[in-house]
Amino acid sequence: MKPINVGLLGLGTVGGGTLTVLRRNAGEITRRAGREIKVTMAAVRDLEKARKLAGPELEITTDPMAVVNNTDIDIVVELIGGTSLAKDLVLKAIANGKHVVTANKALLAMHGNEIFQAAQAKGVMVAFEAAVAGGIPIIKALREGLTANRIEWIAGIINGTTNFILTEMRDKGLAFDAVLQQAQELGYAEADPTFDIEGVDAAHKLTIMAAIGFGIPMQFDKAYTEGISKLTKEDIAYAEQLGYRIKLLGITKRTEQGIELRVHPTLIPAKRLIANVEGVMNAVLVKGDAVGATMYYGRGAGAEPTASSVVADLVDVTRMLTSDPENRVPHLAFQPDALSDVPVLAIDEVRTSYYLRLRVFDKPGVLADVTRILADLGISIDAMIQKEPAEGEEQADVILLTHITVEKFINQAIAKIEALSSISGKVTRIRLEELSSN
Amino acid sequence: MKPINVGLLGLGTVGGGTLTVLRRNAGEITRRAGREIKVTMAAVRDLEKARKLAGPELEITTDPMAVVNNTDIDIVVELIGGTSLAKDLVLKAIANGKHVVTANKALLAMHGNEIFQAAQAKGVMVAFEAAVAGGIPIIKALREGLTANRIEWIAGIINGTTNFILTEMRDKGLAFDAVLQQAQELGYAEADPTFDIEGVDAAHKLTIMAAIGFGIPMQFDKAYTEGISKLTKEDIAYAEQLGYRIKLLGITKRTEQGIELRVHPTLIPAKRLIANVEGVMNAVLVKGDAVGATMYYGRGAGAEPTASSVVADLVDVTRMLTSDPENRVPHLAFQPDALSDVPVLAIDEVRTSYYLRLRVFDKPGVLADVTRILADLGISIDAMIQKEPAEGEEQADVILLTHITVEKFINQAIAKIEALSSISGKVTRIRLEELSSN
Repeated sequence: MKPINVGLLGLGTVGGGTLTVLRRNAGEITRRAGREIKVTMAAVRDLEKARKLAGPELEITTDPMAVVNNTDIDIVVELIGGTSLAKDLVLKAIANGKHVVTANKALLAMHGNEIFQAAQAKGVMVAFEAAVAGGIPIIKALREGLTANRIEWIAGIINGTTNFILTEMRDKGLAFDAVLQQAQELGYAEADPTFDIEGVDAAHKLTIMAAIGFGIPMQFDKAYTEGISKLTKEDIAYAEQLGYRIKLLGITKRTEQGIELRVHPTLIPAKRLIANVEGVMNAVLVKGDAVGATMYYGRGAGAEPTASSVVADLVDVTRMLTSDPENRVPHLAFQPDALSDVPVLAIDEVRTSYYLRLRVFDKPGVLADVTRILADLGISIDAMIQKEPAEGEEQADVILLTHITVEKFINQAIAKIEALSSISGKVTRIRLEELSSN
Repeated sequence: MKPINVGLLGLGTVGGGTLTVLRRNAGEITRRAGREIKVTMAAVRDLEKARKLAGPELEITTDPMAVVNNTDIDIVVELIGGTSLAKDLVLKAIANGKHVVTANKALLAMHGNEIFQAAQAKGVMVAFEAAVAGGIPIIKALREGLTANRIEWIAGIINGTTNFILTEMRDKGLAFDAVLQQAQELGYAEADPTFDIEGVDAAHKLTIMAAIGFGIPMQFDKAYTEGISKLTKEDIAYAEQLGYRIKLLGITKRTEQGIELRVHPTLIPAKRLIANVEGVMNAVLVKGDAVGATMYYGRGAGAEPTASSVVADLVDVTRMLTSDPENRVPHLAFQPDALSDVPVLAIDEVRTSYYLRLRVFDKPGVLADVTRILADLGISIDAMIQKEPAEGEEQADVILLTHITVEKFINQAIAKIEALSSISGKVTRIRLEELSSN
């Protein structure tokens, strides 16, 4: 089957990320989509820079209309941002019968009604998972995962720049201006950060989520928008004393009077999971009448997280163009003839860290024996607690955390430790996982 | 257009919830699906009980094969559980050309390969969002939302019973047996809790997620399963001292040697978001190479949360049967001709709580004046902090949290408070949201 040909408008952060992800994971993506997805053309501002990034197999142009008008292209990915040229390009792509994938929240919040109407009339898809909360598949959750529910409200941390600033202000007791400068140096805030810090970017995303959640047209002009630039570290500290964190939330709520649509700094109880979403991370909390509250958490920006959503949309469109409707999404995500026979490991071969608790008789040399046994098996110790024996007892607990090892080695070590005369009874062994996102 | 006819196999907790949700949200569901979804028949064990629950417009039978063989039924929803009769019914429904929705994790983990092959051959859908993590749309996220990624690992709290028990053991310092009994009294644990507490239920769900994440066949027999019944409160306390929480995790990981597939109690750093998922709540953390870590959180069991996923699958099948492929999912989730014109409220009309910070001159009666102003506008106070003036200053901070009111009233109050001679400067106002899931 011939590949799906993709034309990129823009080869900056997200465009570059999209190219990288499509190339690195080409095998898995094809196994999932049922067909190769290939970027064949890109419109850029700087030809030379783009050539270096894209390599020779890609047609590069400075004329975005040339991509939109190229009859070989099946899907146009709009990543140039803004609301004027981007709008013309998207509408022209639709008119040309091409499917569109876009990450452009401003465009959709302001012109989505017109764009969707055009797409509907022409019978093409306009997919926009990347427009809200970067790599988090929140559009799919709202549009498909929660369709049973009357949505009551949506509340989201949907701007990483401001969440980073608020996290730093709280952690370090710093003022807004100082943290903003730091965020700019780290690349988490733009040179002109207005759209982020004044809540405009969040309001674009919130407008889109409200439309999907409540089945209303896009109404960005009705959104209330208040940013974080006037927040003081004193208010953050007082909120903390009262048991609250301050987050920039986008909130949309159905009430008897109408729909609330508002972005502003908000005190939320510190014990809520979403209050503990820190740094540049995003999270969206959705309250449905049947499911209750569900939350979706992940990276809301950045090259590859955003590309993750762009490519997911490309796979969605490709599946629609490739398979019969009832086989559009394979049961196990991968095409049935493309499953892998990679083996499932026996538990003995698993690699992880361990918590060990030993009951030891309080006599000299026992820890030396234990640590020797572990060292001989190549197991290193990350942390240890040694308790005093309780009153009237001769034994005490020793707790060890190990670094990563193979389970069979820890089992050998435990057998040897249990055989020591200074050890009482069985060793308690519980596995430990760091679950680091790096 | 004629409705989609649904036949339910089982009208217990989830079946009843499915009926309730479909009826209560019929309007919104039809606006999303493009077509009415109607339960026309149900197979039950107790005819009389079922009749009371279902009302007269439903055909009730004790013979599940009668549902599967009914030529008027488009989608069969299998909710009877188990792996023998359920398997026969599902395969027969497929053979009859019916689409199937199931919440049966054991069935899929053990016989999914055969069932999916049959469905594939027959050109029908077998949808199973409700089989993993109840109301959380994790199957959709893994199968469609994260298709750009090479999945590196998945770690989930995917059994509410055991998470409730572990949460109570830690919070209250209780032993396993005591909490299990309490969980049974609350209905969070079954009379025979073996499947839950020994990790079998979690292993079923993990098997399904591993297959989707890595594109491997279902291999439940290779899963390692260890429950929580041997965990002691001492180990939970020691873990806490070391900065960890103990959770029953389902973990599946891709390594160079093969796939790890294991359910067991696990220490995880207390600072991770997933370590703070408490009580009966579920959460799944997925690490993809492009997106990084994303997390999905919500209720993993219960009548309506599970029904939320069952109905989402019904909408998925209905959309496939109803719309052209490129219009399968409407851009704004609701059909374009079914958008609502409910108004967006002006910010003045928004109802929320407020944090107010006032700089007050340290003189008698000032708080009486402030509280009088608030009371006159019907605004009640939830909490207050009054600070002493800093050394050498005449003013001090007073912080008030209000109960819910309308924004225009708080603005009127602020104007009056700022006019008091005992108040210095502007009042700081920050909105407050409880974000409660109730």
